[in-house]
Amino acid sequence: MARIDYPEAVGKLVEELRRLPGVGPRSAERMAIWLLQSAKADPLALATALEKAKAEVVACPVCGFFATAERCAICSDHSREPVICVVEQATDVLPLERSGAFRGRYHCLGGKLSPLDNVTPEDLRIGSLLRRIDTEKVPEVILAPGSDVEGEATANYLASILRGRCQVTRIAQGLPAGGGLEHADALTLARALEGRRDL
Amino acid sequence: MARIDYPEAVGKLVEELRRLPGVGPRSAERMAIWLLQSAKADPLALATALEKAKAEVVACPVCGFFATAERCAICSDHSREPVICVVEQATDVLPLERSGAFRGRYHCLGGKLSPLDNVTPEDLRIGSLLRRIDTEKVPEVILAPGSDVEGEATANYLASILRGRCQVTRIAQGLPAGGGLEHADALTLARALEGRRDL
Repeated sequence: MARIDYPEAVGKLVEELRRLPGVGPRSAERMAIWLLQSAKADPLALATALEKAKAEVVACPVCGFFATAERCAICSDHSREPVICVVEQATDVLPLERSGAFRGRYHCLGGKLSPLDNVTPEDLRIGSLLRRIDTEKVPEVILAPGSDVEGEATANYLASILRGRCQVTRIAQGLPAGGGLEHADALTLARALEGRRDL
Repeated sequence: MARIDYPEAVGKLVEELRRLPGVGPRSAERMAIWLLQSAKADPLALATALEKAKAEVVACPVCGFFATAERCAICSDHSREPVICVVEQATDVLPLERSGAFRGRYHCLGGKLSPLDNVTPEDLRIGSLLRRIDTEKVPEVILAPGSDVEGEATANYLASILRGRCQVTRIAQGLPAGGGLEHADALTLARALEGRRDL
């Protein structure tokens, strides 16, 4: 009696789904079966969306955000202020955009300094940031990497090389909106006190 | 200043990923970004696996398990015993196979009786089961729908129409292997007592 398993094509699909972030072997199997069995599933639409996104979407050569044309929608928007907000990843741009609090341009570093992971300044898009500051006549660079250790190190490194070229600021750290003092950790409170402002 | 969002192709990919079972809007976005940005990702391999699985995999016309040829690997295996194990879904076959405790054939109903969801006997593959019992000279049918209310109802319904045609049995209910009494619910314990055997 031969050992039975799913047909090879199903196994291959499970294997590919399993590589997605947050998907384990059980959920990959569940997704594959759903894709093949459910009347609501449309595996070919997903396949087409993957192929189309892979073919069309590139990193904007100027700022690193997602683009389908020569430049991304933000870099081609001439009504934007010349201020540059430096973020770690292209995925950090939309949260800032949705806040509605920033009307300038962005620069995605593509990561943060992390000696343990062998990420050095040469691995980040810092050279192109320096060129932009010169050519775009940037009055201010807002440093907005995350507030973890690597993010802080990246912000400090950038501040040291940008100082003198333009105004350099760091986004504020403190209590998150709606957060009570009892839920804040000690470091957040220390930074919130440090960053206090006159009223 | 125009409202910025991901390029349309990314949005479409997020939308398609979001339809997968167990995937919410945040994880769909995370998956899409990973697929487009990670060096380890291979979106075209996933697209190909989807297309290939969709094109190659069909339900076996005899038993309903996954097949790529005219019949599935189990139905084409002539060394199997003529006993039929009736399960709800094609996905219930492999767990039974992996147990190594069954050497017969299977029949996937494609669901279970559930008046609340409008699933009636006509929606299940019962006619083809009756034909198989006649043509394959089946000595025994093992009823293995789940042990929930609908599974029990389905097993009882099948038992009522199969009685007289062949021997009809139901897989046992009781303590799961490795389960202590303190973790078992009352219904499981009641059924374990009911189904006790002489030693």
